[in-house]
Amino acid sequence: MRALSAFRTVRGMRDFLPEEAERMRHVEETARELARLYLYEEVITPVVESYDLLEAKAGEEIRHRMYTFKDLGGRKVALRPEFTPSIARLVATKMKNCPKPMRIFCAGSLYRYDEPQYGRYREFWQSNYELIGSNRPEADAEILTLTNKFIQRLGLRNYRFKIGHMGILRGILSQEGVSEEQQSKTMHLLDKKQSKAALEILENAKVSTRCMETLKEVIDTRGRDAFPVLDRVEKIVEGYSNAIAAVENLREIIELTRKGGTRFEMSIEAGFARGLEYYTGIVFEPSIPEMDIALGGGGRYDKLIELFGGEPTPAVGVAHGIDRLALATKKQKVRPRIAAERRVLIVPIGEAVKARAVELSLSLRKVGIPVVVDVMGRTVSRALQDADRRKVTHAVILGPEELRDEKAVLRDMKGRKQKAVNVADLSEEILKGTD
Amino acid sequence: MRALSAFRTVRGMRDFLPEEAERMRHVEETARELARLYLYEEVITPVVESYDLLEAKAGEEIRHRMYTFKDLGGRKVALRPEFTPSIARLVATKMKNCPKPMRIFCAGSLYRYDEPQYGRYREFWQSNYELIGSNRPEADAEILTLTNKFIQRLGLRNYRFKIGHMGILRGILSQEGVSEEQQSKTMHLLDKKQSKAALEILENAKVSTRCMETLKEVIDTRGRDAFPVLDRVEKIVEGYSNAIAAVENLREIIELTRKGGTRFEMSIEAGFARGLEYYTGIVFEPSIPEMDIALGGGGRYDKLIELFGGEPTPAVGVAHGIDRLALATKKQKVRPRIAAERRVLIVPIGEAVKARAVELSLSLRKVGIPVVVDVMGRTVSRALQDADRRKVTHAVILGPEELRDEKAVLRDMKGRKQKAVNVADLSEEILKGTD
Repeated sequence: MRALSAFRTVRGMRDFLPEEAERMRHVEETARELARLYLYEEVITPVVESYDLLEAKAGEEIRHRMYTFKDLGGRKVALRPEFTPSIARLVATKMKNCPKPMRIFCAGSLYRYDEPQYGRYREFWQSNYELIGSNRPEADAEILTLTNKFIQRLGLRNYRFKIGHMGILRGILSQEGVSEEQQSKTMHLLDKKQSKAALEILENAKVSTRCMETLKEVIDTRGRDAFPVLDRVEKIVEGYSNAIAAVENLREIIELTRKGGTRFEMSIEAGFARGLEYYTGIVFEPSIPEMDIALGGGGRYDKLIELFGGEPTPAVGVAHGIDRLALATKKQKVRPRIAAERRVLIVPIGEAVKARAVELSLSLRKVGIPVVVDVMGRTVSRALQDADRRKVTHAVILGPEELRDEKAVLRDMKGRKQKAVNVADLSEEILKGTD
Repeated sequence: MRALSAFRTVRGMRDFLPEEAERMRHVEETARELARLYLYEEVITPVVESYDLLEAKAGEEIRHRMYTFKDLGGRKVALRPEFTPSIARLVATKMKNCPKPMRIFCAGSLYRYDEPQYGRYREFWQSNYELIGSNRPEADAEILTLTNKFIQRLGLRNYRFKIGHMGILRGILSQEGVSEEQQSKTMHLLDKKQSKAALEILENAKVSTRCMETLKEVIDTRGRDAFPVLDRVEKIVEGYSNAIAAVENLREIIELTRKGGTRFEMSIEAGFARGLEYYTGIVFEPSIPEMDIALGGGGRYDKLIELFGGEPTPAVGVAHGIDRLALATKKQKVRPRIAAERRVLIVPIGEAVKARAVELSLSLRKVGIPVVVDVMGRTVSRALQDADRRKVTHAVILGPEELRDEKAVLRDMKGRKQKAVNVADLSEEILKGTD
């Protein structure tokens, strides 16, 4: 048999050791807490879904990067590469009678066979919020506001939202008679920052010179001061009524967000497109300067449910990269919640007081104090040495003699001081003992 | 394209709608909270592991029920059917320099191609605690105590632990010269309650008549009153020194648990075996009368790490079925935590006050009140109708006129009463408003 030490994680997969795992869970719990405050109801859907569902609306690119296989019953299945198809399935089936708008939250792991690189792995985690059934700008503003709150609560600094609107470019292209398919190709290339190739497609499609010029100007228009940028874009797209409506929509969303009391740094990019084909309105991605990759992304996708053959259902949503956000808190050295400012070790001296040690541990945990009881039968000095390596803040030494007077020795591991304390007063002493 | 409504979950996979999802997350969070209090450090390992690792120590049965496939790079991989191989891998590699004993926690989804039945699915969730590096009975007692605390915290009633010790039967069989392989086969059959077939194997292996009689007696010995049962077993196994040591070990663990202040209903079953081959000491399974299947299971497995070619490392652990525990709380009608005793809907009247509604929602959430803002532009009466369907407890109606005096209308949805309240006093009114 191969030695255990010869085993590795599969390429693109990761272990999270305690410190990283704590960051991950902290991000996930913050996401869930926000879902509760915003009344997004959580659902849990399977990691393994039918291939047909997952490929139905996935772009070519995602489809080829799915973990696809046959189960033992011969069913063609895949590991979900994103949450949206599963949520769309629920909305169209088991939740179809729920009152609209629906606010749905989910969080879990996703799988894509990407080339592993910094911050991008084959198993990754997202928290996902979807607001389904409203086409109004206050819905878009809610998703933006919520995302901002999330990043704020995590303690991240200097983050910025890149914001665009799919309706600007699509509005121009539709009016020029460019087919949906060619539009999607163009968007896809723009998303990959290949604007030259994108413009070539359109030249081949023989759009008007004026259109080409407008597009080039749109793509080059960006800036941090939202309203002046939008004014400029509106002038550039003059005559393209749907594009103008898109600019107006974006203006209204940002106005609502600001007037609602939410401010964040942003960069309006009129030519910003997100790769997934189903976006129809605002699109956005938050990021921090320390990382090249976005921390998440969202937008309005009014046509998705329809694309699946359902009723036309407007929707707006956002996915946050849990592992990326955890990495961001590490990059910016944000301390995760002080999970255990007190860590207590109880050391029983001799067999006779072992049970008493367990009893004491139960009563300390009852008031919320994290406690570990020595299970190695160590001597006091060895146990205290070990305690130092484990960041224990207090050691309780239980000796038969002290116990006769219902006392124990409480040792402050930082201050290296110790004193005899009544067993009944231990929790109080420990709780006041720190800071 | 197929209509969305034609899509189903893959056989054996499940969706959890909001109520069920909340139960699941409550169980998982309770498990994590206990891990913090007992200082078990959480790790996260991948769902996709190398096939070689997962099959290395899995019994024949699990091996054949794994979701196995090749990834796009041709690697033979599988979805983890249990946590133990991944934890063992970590302990032997990245965590090998951590001080012993190690207390490790993990929680997540697992995959087995079982025949779906009540409480048993192909995707299921476990929380897992491992105490690695101690061979002393206080370690076993800690795992038992922790499991009892977990079930208690969830509010389950009438639960009972089935408890046995692998050393009793194995002690007898070793002394009779039965090979490890035949021992494992015997244990496996006993686990499946096929004691006749198990005894046949031993008859074929030509064990002594006395041994056969002892075994039959052992298998039939069980009872709820731990110490008298253990006394009986000790008499039955007279002359088999390792079996006697096993009984003594079990006695000491149970004594320690009790003296430590933990009491729970138990059934000692001297012939109880758990299927996984690697158990060497105590084995246990908690259950409730309303469900046929165990809520979890654990035990001591001192040979596992060695089996992988590592250093001999004693260990004891337990896995709890998160979805089974969630089902148990439902069966016993235990109310999950009151996630949101207050659910507030803000209805802005007219476009002009929309932003103000968002601003107010942010300030209410700041003090922990779950709030939703209408994003449908509904009239007040339609919004209130909708609020009733969503179990909203308070509606805040924001009209431009009232706002001129910094007032809003607060409606108690249960009492059907409403009054004008200063906007600044809303959170206080809402917080005192309920119960």
